[in-house]
Amino acid sequence: MARFVSLEPIDVRFPTSRHLDGSDAMNPEPDYSAAYIVVSTDADDGLEGHGFTFTTGRGNDVQTVATAALAPWLLGRDVDDVLDNLGPFGRELTHDPQLRWLGPEKGVVHMACGALINALWDLRAKRAGLPLWQLLSRLSPEEIVELVDFTYLTDALTRDDALALLRNAGRTRAEREQVLVETGYPAYTTTPGWLGYDDAKLARLSREAVADGFDLIKLKVGASIDDDLRRMAVAREAVGPGIRVAIDANQRWEVDQATAWVSRLSEYDPYWIEEPTSPDDILGHAVIRAKVTPVRVATGEHAHNRVMFKQFLQAGAIDIVQLDASRVAGVNENIAILLLAAKFGVPVCPHAGGVGLCEVVRHLAMFDFVAVSASMTGRYIEYVDHLHEHFLDPAVVTGGRYVAPSMPGASTEMLAASIRDHRYPDGPVWSEG
Amino acid sequence: MARFVSLEPIDVRFPTSRHLDGSDAMNPEPDYSAAYIVVSTDADDGLEGHGFTFTTGRGNDVQTVATAALAPWLLGRDVDDVLDNLGPFGRELTHDPQLRWLGPEKGVVHMACGALINALWDLRAKRAGLPLWQLLSRLSPEEIVELVDFTYLTDALTRDDALALLRNAGRTRAEREQVLVETGYPAYTTTPGWLGYDDAKLARLSREAVADGFDLIKLKVGASIDDDLRRMAVAREAVGPGIRVAIDANQRWEVDQATAWVSRLSEYDPYWIEEPTSPDDILGHAVIRAKVTPVRVATGEHAHNRVMFKQFLQAGAIDIVQLDASRVAGVNENIAILLLAAKFGVPVCPHAGGVGLCEVVRHLAMFDFVAVSASMTGRYIEYVDHLHEHFLDPAVVTGGRYVAPSMPGASTEMLAASIRDHRYPDGPVWSEG
Repeated sequence: MARFVSLEPIDVRFPTSRHLDGSDAMNPEPDYSAAYIVVSTDADDGLEGHGFTFTTGRGNDVQTVATAALAPWLLGRDVDDVLDNLGPFGRELTHDPQLRWLGPEKGVVHMACGALINALWDLRAKRAGLPLWQLLSRLSPEEIVELVDFTYLTDALTRDDALALLRNAGRTRAEREQVLVETGYPAYTTTPGWLGYDDAKLARLSREAVADGFDLIKLKVGASIDDDLRRMAVAREAVGPGIRVAIDANQRWEVDQATAWVSRLSEYDPYWIEEPTSPDDILGHAVIRAKVTPVRVATGEHAHNRVMFKQFLQAGAIDIVQLDASRVAGVNENIAILLLAAKFGVPVCPHAGGVGLCEVVRHLAMFDFVAVSASMTGRYIEYVDHLHEHFLDPAVVTGGRYVAPSMPGASTEMLAASIRDHRYPDGPVWSEG
Repeated sequence: MARFVSLEPIDVRFPTSRHLDGSDAMNPEPDYSAAYIVVSTDADDGLEGHGFTFTTGRGNDVQTVATAALAPWLLGRDVDDVLDNLGPFGRELTHDPQLRWLGPEKGVVHMACGALINALWDLRAKRAGLPLWQLLSRLSPEEIVELVDFTYLTDALTRDDALALLRNAGRTRAEREQVLVETGYPAYTTTPGWLGYDDAKLARLSREAVADGFDLIKLKVGASIDDDLRRMAVAREAVGPGIRVAIDANQRWEVDQATAWVSRLSEYDPYWIEEPTSPDDILGHAVIRAKVTPVRVATGEHAHNRVMFKQFLQAGAIDIVQLDASRVAGVNENIAILLLAAKFGVPVCPHAGGVGLCEVVRHLAMFDFVAVSASMTGRYIEYVDHLHEHFLDPAVVTGGRYVAPSMPGASTEMLAASIRDHRYPDGPVWSEG
């Protein structure tokens, strides 16, 4: 019988602030970082589980310590028993009454649970010899609902609701798996639109995005209305009327301010407004949505758990669900969020970028297509052209579409050399930088 | 010029699980703990600022690390400049774009900000020679609003709204300060009602509470409806019809379950139902409140920031605001919450118990009475008879009322011997326990 023998935490940071890649109205100088863990067993296969929480620099040490603090829940336990029961294992973490006090189900401790749960899914998928999306897509509806914590959801989504959704999609899973492998999944790109880029670079990158096959690009907004009007004009001019241009305010506005600002930008036909205000403000998003329609309202990368997504959907506050790989309690809670979105008929367009987020969220969107929503309509996975070279199984986008990954695992594994070079503060990028 | 020279973090834990004090439906075996800090300066006065986050055991190490991680924001800075500008200083912490990613404004990092901000208020009050409540009550309306972060609040509360409220209460502050000093502030007691206590102990402690002058007691519920019906009958029989009996489910229920459970207990006339479901579920609380009226709905000890309180009030979801001393970003954010509650005309009944919470929140409730809501009607501060002996300026309740503290500071300071004995894991209570 194999047991878990180690959980190694590593503080990995990339000095992205040196070039203003990733700059937005709320995050002017991020150093994209990962509170990274490697889970090992004493099995003969030598396989490891890799997982991480994405952060933007300062505090990555705290996040790493929090993830390491989960080791007592794992070490010494039977590998098969844990991996075959990731639903109950996840609930052991998120329902621990003492740890729970530090959230509950939010912030550093909840993200730490997500990193560990994702690392275990990576290991399970490697052992199964399947990419995560395919492993998940081939579970039975009963196995899938066992992964979901329905606590606080039953006024919107019951276990029976979820089973009915999954069974309905289940009849045609095989054909959609084939479609995915053959044609991939739509992507949109944020690469042209960072606030730190000048107009010429914005125009050039916007045109290149269209030439590369993207039909949706995204611009960061929210620092200055005059700049935003000018930049939106530049982007619209560059891509023409047939391409969707989404805008992202990264939480910079008050509710009334969001409404006024989006109204002024509406002459350039924004496809969605993302994070117009506090990610906690469900009622505020509902007010904004009512006032800016037909511009869609999107949020979710900072929505901290399934209870928040439930309410955004119940309140009719959003048109687009932007789940994040490492903000909530990992794959398990993201399955709950996919099911909620499907129940309410709202498309999921995962947040990505950062470090490794493109790599991980493609599995969730593809699982959604095959087994949950059964649709790609109005759905995109975010794509940002940063830091993929550090991953063993990097995201590949061609012709504006994500290629379905085929390597076993959850694509969470960073290259050993990248980890070594970017370890904070002692890796050469930092100690010699 | 004096500067801040150290921020000492200490992991302090009390083995309360050994006697089931503090047991409830969600927290069966808590070890009440404090992620504690001592802030020192090189001033001649030798005064220190003490602050902490309350936790229930596991994870207190993570919380302590997170608080220590704030040291770079403080060390080396001018003491007068920081203490005279605690509003801007607090916003430096909570708006740091990199740290903010780890919440935003929630969980471990936000609570760490609260501990540091409270420690600085403790130091400022000691230097002023006043108890915190009196220091705050004597600030001008303009000085008070400068402490508040109005970000994400302006659709419900503007700076001008807050100024108007404070100026209105300001005219009669002096007489209310006198009333407080002479008669204290109403308390309610949770001491009789822990789930781990048997019926005889519940009855005896309930009768003692009434004899001690309390007119509101609180019972933990939510683990078993049959037990709750029996215990509620025991308590009601013990105290008679004229005493208020509140109930507290500690987040154990689904929305529909809460409604059904409270309806069954309503024959015993519960005064409020506290934490019926997830502390994130604003819409759920609104549904429950509509269905269980006239039983009041109360929550707040786990509401993670002012944006959540704003929405609970906007949605008409709660009758009682239960702010917590160390869940949000300290005194500053609690002032925002007091102003929101006053704007909506909803009474604040602070959460207390734990470690040191009674000591700290009395300052907030008393400031509310003197300078904000100007009322004690329907207002109580929770009182639990645990662990006060470890504090330099312990809460004193006589005749069912909190005595107004007179010692300079925020009452956050624990006795040196208590810290030494309960330091985890090397203090004698743990190493020899």
